[in-house]
Amino acid sequence: MKTEVVIIGGGPSGLLLSQLLNRGGIDTVILERTSRKRVLDRIRAGVLESGTVQLLREAGVGDRMDREGIPHEGCYLSDDDLMVRINFHELTGKKVMVYGQTEVTTDLYEAQDAMGTRIIHNAADVVINDVTTDALYVEYTVDGARQRIDCQFVAGCDGFHGVSRQTIPVDKREEFERVYPFGWLGVLSRTPPANHELIYANSRHGFALASMRNENLSRYYVQAPLTDKVEDWSDDRFWETLKIRLPKETADTLVTGPSIEKSIAPLRSFVSEPLRWGSLFLVGDSAHIVPPTGAKGLNLAVSDVYYLHDALIAALKKGDRAGVDSYAERALARIWKAMRFSWQMTTMLHQFDGEDSFAAQMRKATLSHLSQSETARRDLAENYIGLPF
Amino acid sequence: MKTEVVIIGGGPSGLLLSQLLNRGGIDTVILERTSRKRVLDRIRAGVLESGTVQLLREAGVGDRMDREGIPHEGCYLSDDDLMVRINFHELTGKKVMVYGQTEVTTDLYEAQDAMGTRIIHNAADVVINDVTTDALYVEYTVDGARQRIDCQFVAGCDGFHGVSRQTIPVDKREEFERVYPFGWLGVLSRTPPANHELIYANSRHGFALASMRNENLSRYYVQAPLTDKVEDWSDDRFWETLKIRLPKETADTLVTGPSIEKSIAPLRSFVSEPLRWGSLFLVGDSAHIVPPTGAKGLNLAVSDVYYLHDALIAALKKGDRAGVDSYAERALARIWKAMRFSWQMTTMLHQFDGEDSFAAQMRKATLSHLSQSETARRDLAENYIGLPF
Repeated sequence: MKTEVVIIGGGPSGLLLSQLLNRGGIDTVILERTSRKRVLDRIRAGVLESGTVQLLREAGVGDRMDREGIPHEGCYLSDDDLMVRINFHELTGKKVMVYGQTEVTTDLYEAQDAMGTRIIHNAADVVINDVTTDALYVEYTVDGARQRIDCQFVAGCDGFHGVSRQTIPVDKREEFERVYPFGWLGVLSRTPPANHELIYANSRHGFALASMRNENLSRYYVQAPLTDKVEDWSDDRFWETLKIRLPKETADTLVTGPSIEKSIAPLRSFVSEPLRWGSLFLVGDSAHIVPPTGAKGLNLAVSDVYYLHDALIAALKKGDRAGVDSYAERALARIWKAMRFSWQMTTMLHQFDGEDSFAAQMRKATLSHLSQSETARRDLAENYIGLPF
Repeated sequence: MKTEVVIIGGGPSGLLLSQLLNRGGIDTVILERTSRKRVLDRIRAGVLESGTVQLLREAGVGDRMDREGIPHEGCYLSDDDLMVRINFHELTGKKVMVYGQTEVTTDLYEAQDAMGTRIIHNAADVVINDVTTDALYVEYTVDGARQRIDCQFVAGCDGFHGVSRQTIPVDKREEFERVYPFGWLGVLSRTPPANHELIYANSRHGFALASMRNENLSRYYVQAPLTDKVEDWSDDRFWETLKIRLPKETADTLVTGPSIEKSIAPLRSFVSEPLRWGSLFLVGDSAHIVPPTGAKGLNLAVSDVYYLHDALIAALKKGDRAGVDSYAERALARIWKAMRFSWQMTTMLHQFDGEDSFAAQMRKATLSHLSQSETARRDLAENYIGLPF
């Protein structure tokens, strides 16, 4: 088989890159390790930056998002004493869109199917060969048969555990990592959300997030020890824990119900440099992970896709390699800023085991500063709605 | 002896409080543990917030400051790659004033002498008695003789090691503390400053600050291990260390010379609550310490003085105790915001032993964010020039 760009990974970033390349007249093949059902079963992020929303529209996959997504003009940050609204729209002129990653992925599959793009599922043992030469090719196994695709570029959209980053020799990679000493226990429930907008709660009992997918689908999280298992958390225990961490007026009116999904995720900040190795380009989670506080994961993958689709179209259609050569630098500049924001939001909102009493006071003082300084709220809002591409 | 307010501590905050009270028609006595010369020999802060400048003028001690002080419209933050100007004046409409604490203290002594205020030096073994009753009095020893002053209020302006805070029963105090794992080695030299404005440098070799007192008096600092002694640091070693931490263009033109003062100070964040115990009110370092990064120490003592002088004049002249009753709360609200700013500046600019590689990246990303976001620069500027009283 031959194509111009092999995209490894059929999650939202791989699909969006393929969609944008196809619309630019570039031929792609997507290799996905699992089935379409497995991809769509992943419950992930739900908040899209305004730049992400714009790019999805430009990719021709914005119609259902614009109909069913819920624009949010702000969010809340709280502690045991204060509840501070961050009015994104007033502070920046922009909004975010609540629309689940699963929905984005569904829309992208549909659009890619309509394009007739080759999406190869259950592609095992992917190997990227001769990536620093002009004769690169990708091998994989489907139904027991080894296959080969020759191509000009490879985009590594295959996440933290994927093969793409591993293809860069380990002695050529520099990795930066912070592992946080707690996880997020998440619950999805068919209940009306606690609030129309998200509430990030830093209580003396730990962090909680009241989030939502739609008017009858809520997504809640509580900070939990990394050693906890999902089985340790009955629905009752979860709701009780959530209630004591949310602002009282929110907790008092919280509608609870059976969980339809429950999982514990660790929190990690991670960046691997470089993003480019010969004709291989890393995109999204394959090169960088943010903790979920601040909703930057999917949005950051999308800005990588933005830079890369532009670069690959210029290289393949006009022979202009400037974008390809500057991809890593452009993408990393934005990545590090989002890493900073996510780290700061995480540090500001969570309790750390063994911390001194001064640390809790600094969290309270930060919220108090936000409550009194429009400039501080604007800085948070500008980062939350997304820095420019 | 009798007076209305006994002020314990003859440093700048005690003197300024006395000056403002005297001008409001209140009688004071100042008790200072050491000699006037010892007080004036302390080399301390050199940057006055615009609110501090204003209050010194209102206290009638602004003339020499306005003649000899140097208004600064901005400062610089740097790392090994970037140098970012924070333009206070453009961002906030305000400036800070470079005018050494020693000069402020000299001016205050002169003004207090002109007022005829009783300033009792070498007052030993101060004891504050019956402070929660209506019959409080202060005892002290001078020239071997025990003395007594009856008064209505006591202001504790006697610093971290003073008797005032210790007068509050230990089980009634809550203390918050963060000790940073490094100190500042400071050098004063009769050389022209490296730059017209301050440079806070976060280099891969550690922190440095290029500061100044006047056009031929420079004050420099470098981050140093707490275990180091002044004797470990020859002038040559100091200048070499400073040069590799400052931005290259600054280092290249740095004028060095013999040090005329050299000292190592630890960095600490500390708050003791409450600020009030009966008729005793804690002011400045007796209740709170900030690390020097961000120049908040003296300025924060001055805002305490502002709230307290107002409260005491209202109580003593009009019998209105509202200000006295709200002093602790008003002062603490501003104190915690300055604690937050000083902690953030310290964390953002220093290297911590044993830190992961991610920490250094977060410092670089913070500077990069400041370089690109006017909102972030404005937030820093608003805090640096001083939040409103």
